[in-house]
This record gives sequence, structure tokens and C-alpha cells, in this order.
Amino acid sequence: MAEKLSETERETALSELQETGWSLDADRDAISKEFKFSNFVSAFGWMSQVAMVAEKMNHHPEWSNVYNNVSVTLTTHDAEGLTELDLKLARRMDKLAG
Amino acid sequence: MAEKLSETERETALSELQETGWSLDADRDAISKEFKFSNFVSAFGWMSQVAMVAEKMNHHPEWSNVYNNVSVTLTTHDAEGLTELDLKLARRMDKLAG
Repeated sequence: MAEKLSETERETALSELQETGWSLDADRDAISKEFKFSNFVSAFGWMSQVAMVAEKMNHHPEWSNVYNNVSVTLTTHDAEGLTELDLKLARRMDKLAG
Repeated sequence: MAEKLSETERETALSELQETGWSLDADRDAISKEFKFSNFVSAFGWMSQVAMVAEKMNHHPEWSNVYNNVSVTLTTHDAEGLTELDLKLARRMDKLAG
């Protein structure tokens, strides 16, 4: 099972992810980002790519979609906070969107 | 452009949709439903089917997914309320989930 990040790991990872638009929801120890695409097909196409990555990782996002916009929150429920899995999925999401 | 439903049309449609678990959000003149599946693959598989139907209708849901759960809200932004498009998409969603 994934373990919660240490303070140092969290600081380092967050400063990197904040540069690409992720923000920390301190209440839930989760990270969130809004992804914007040109239209619904692009948004859902990206979600489909992410869905396969997430299923393979056995680590799934909380996400909402309204037309060309996808709002994502990542946290590890089992660990009740951020783990390496969240950072990995966040980076994959950025890469697939980029 | 789709027109807002008349009071009578809305009443008839809502009583039918409420039987399958849809509820009215009167504030927004929207309908909502929680769809539950056995796992993420089933949930996202259903979303993929709905995505194609929605794109073809050019009428898209507001939806959130957390693992096996999909929360859907339907309304017609252009008409600022429920139209025939929402009823049609709601019925298609039920059929694809059933």
C-alpha cells in the first residue's frame, strides 16, 4: 500500500506540480487542477487516455467534466492523503494533456 | 435551438424519470442522477458510450466520476433550463446503464 508523503517529499513535489497548475487542497490533503481543451471530443479523449493509465495503476481520479473542461482532484483514500501514486498520476495527466 | 419544456411537458417527463432515480434541481431547472457500477472499468465504459451519444446529439452532460460512481446533471444552458434534449439524453443514459 502507498504511504503518505513525508513533509519534504510533499514540499518538493508540490512546488514542481504548482508550476503546471496544480494546487493543494490542504483540508483534504489532495491536489486539484482544471484542464481545459478545445471541445468535448478533446476533453473526453484525454479522459479516456487517463482512464486507462489510472486503471493500470489501480489509482483513480475524482473528476468532473463540463463540455471542454475537466476538473481533477487526486488523493489516496487508503492513505488518507497524498502519496507517490497521486504525483505519478498528476504527471501522467500533464504529459497526456501537453 | 431547443426550447424550454412547458409546465405540462415537464410534469409528465419528470414523473417518468423520477421512477428511474432522476431528481429535479429546481434552483437550476436541471435533473440529476447518481449511477453506480461494479467498478471503474464499468463506470468509465458507460461514460464512453454516453460520450458518443452526447457528442452526436451535440448535447453534453455535466458529470463527475469517483471510481464506480457517476453523478450526472442535465440541463440546457442555451435555454437556461430543461428541454427535450435533456429528457432524451437521460433516457439514453438509463438505457445504456440498464
